[in-house]
Amino acid sequence: MKHLPFFDLVHDDLERVETILLERPPGQHEAISVALDHLVSGGGKRIRPAQVLLSAHLCQADVDKAVFAAAAVELLHTATLVHDDLIDGALIRRGIETLNAHWSPAATVLTGDYVFARAAHLASQAESVPLMQCFAETLMTICNGEVRQMFDGKHKRTDLREYEQRIHAKTASLISMSAQAGAILAAVGEKKRESLRVYGEQLGLAFQIVDDVLDFVADEAMLGKPVGSDLRQGLITLPVLLFLETEPDHPLINRVLEGSAPQNTVDEAVRVIVNSPAIKRALKVAQEHAGQARVALSELSDSPYRTALLGLVNFTVRRRF
Amino acid sequence: MKHLPFFDLVHDDLERVETILLERPPGQHEAISVALDHLVSGGGKRIRPAQVLLSAHLCQADVDKAVFAAAAVELLHTATLVHDDLIDGALIRRGIETLNAHWSPAATVLTGDYVFARAAHLASQAESVPLMQCFAETLMTICNGEVRQMFDGKHKRTDLREYEQRIHAKTASLISMSAQAGAILAAVGEKKRESLRVYGEQLGLAFQIVDDVLDFVADEAMLGKPVGSDLRQGLITLPVLLFLETEPDHPLINRVLEGSAPQNTVDEAVRVIVNSPAIKRALKVAQEHAGQARVALSELSDSPYRTALLGLVNFTVRRRF
Repeated sequence: MKHLPFFDLVHDDLERVETILLERPPGQHEAISVALDHLVSGGGKRIRPAQVLLSAHLCQADVDKAVFAAAAVELLHTATLVHDDLIDGALIRRGIETLNAHWSPAATVLTGDYVFARAAHLASQAESVPLMQCFAETLMTICNGEVRQMFDGKHKRTDLREYEQRIHAKTASLISMSAQAGAILAAVGEKKRESLRVYGEQLGLAFQIVDDVLDFVADEAMLGKPVGSDLRQGLITLPVLLFLETEPDHPLINRVLEGSAPQNTVDEAVRVIVNSPAIKRALKVAQEHAGQARVALSELSDSPYRTALLGLVNFTVRRRF
Repeated sequence: MKHLPFFDLVHDDLERVETILLERPPGQHEAISVALDHLVSGGGKRIRPAQVLLSAHLCQADVDKAVFAAAAVELLHTATLVHDDLIDGALIRRGIETLNAHWSPAATVLTGDYVFARAAHLASQAESVPLMQCFAETLMTICNGEVRQMFDGKHKRTDLREYEQRIHAKTASLISMSAQAGAILAAVGEKKRESLRVYGEQLGLAFQIVDDVLDFVADEAMLGKPVGSDLRQGLITLPVLLFLETEPDHPLINRVLEGSAPQNTVDEAVRVIVNSPAIKRALKVAQEHAGQARVALSELSDSPYRTALLGLVNFTVRRRF
């Protein structure tokens, strides 16, 4: 696990989260334990649990409970990745093999289900009904968004509104839930929770846009998967959307979006996007969301925890991995 | 939906559960709504929600909250069936087409996930932390049991202990949770909850054993799927286990259990089991569990709700569907 510097404040709490993530409840099948060890130790920046913990300190919530909420959020994220990778047929994530790369689809479905169940169980250990409600609503949003993407999203012209709706469901909803968790657990006023919700939502949008840009421009080794994989799968992200705004009739890109272009055409299309101004424009949109996240944070009183949340915003739009 | 006579006491509550099951939360994708309508209106005896409601009345819990718990339990059950059918490649359940019969595996996985999420959300609306914990633990038990069955269970000699462990995970755990729900919501003493837990557990074991017997002896039209489908899939259930106790070396059955027998050999093996005393012996085991469920009920004070729970025990071991 790569600890980010602005997470130092919650370093010890994050260690407790790691311990919980690797715990083996009695009766847990060995195959699941092996899979979970593989998934959990496979990295990830632990942004979501760190948010839960920073939010908990910021709102003076019970940190013992927040540790469970943090582990729950990370496992919920993990569970969605297990099923996503299965659906996309992805064999590599974060540079390591996905479960479905060496397991049957059936085993992968069931393991993902178990991880969902364990995430729900950890969430319930935070002993907060409103947290459970937010947890379940967020999971509904994520799944609903995935269904929408599957039925409506691929190989079809998307507009900016649809794109934002998609990345809200896919990424921002859970990051926003994580940011709110402390406010929910401490039952602070609605205003503080709302500031944290907006902060998390805007940070999440920025985070996913940067991810979508990195999918085009990052170093393959850093990315842990092939460059341009979204476009290869027919998934239209912000760089492509912005490219099409200025060049709606670009024959190469349109051939790829129609779905049946050969490999070398797709490679060429990826290069066209990478070398276009659309990349810089997409990063500018991410910067705008980051700016809104900073505004939301400015509504909270100053504290080292707020500074850490701000550090995460800055990292999000500057990162190269 | 077939309402069973001993559910009359909670008839109106069950109608409220149906309404909740068919509700469409804002933003729910049309494909999910269609799938849920199909799944929910596809029948089922509503045994689990009826148990939750009877348990709630028996323990004088808040029925408005219990209605949410009842809907949650039914949807949790539905979600597990969606993924089960996908994994087994089942095209028919309760006489109607499964989701995966006309949908892609990916769409079926995601819809199942969404149904899990909605079940968790409904459970959270019962506003009880211990109920959420029980809900999540039960889901862990179910998923863990399915993983165990997949990795260890098929085409392999099972013993009675393993069989009971399997049907506990698959069926009894959720029926037991349903039976306890009222006690959990009303926060009555541990003793009452324990009686209801044992009642539900024993009823659940009896229920699944009868299901496993019906898989051999029921009318195909009533069953809604082909007779002997467990054995055809290499799944060893109680009738086969008891048959092998007296005839461990029966060549036909052993050939089928080795996994590669042709269709007519499997048909013949099903007939051998059906015409053996193992069927009656399996039903006797179900009767024993039903007896233990009755003993557990006798520890509760007499009431029309207790009588209804007793009616369900009697129905379970006498039913032909």
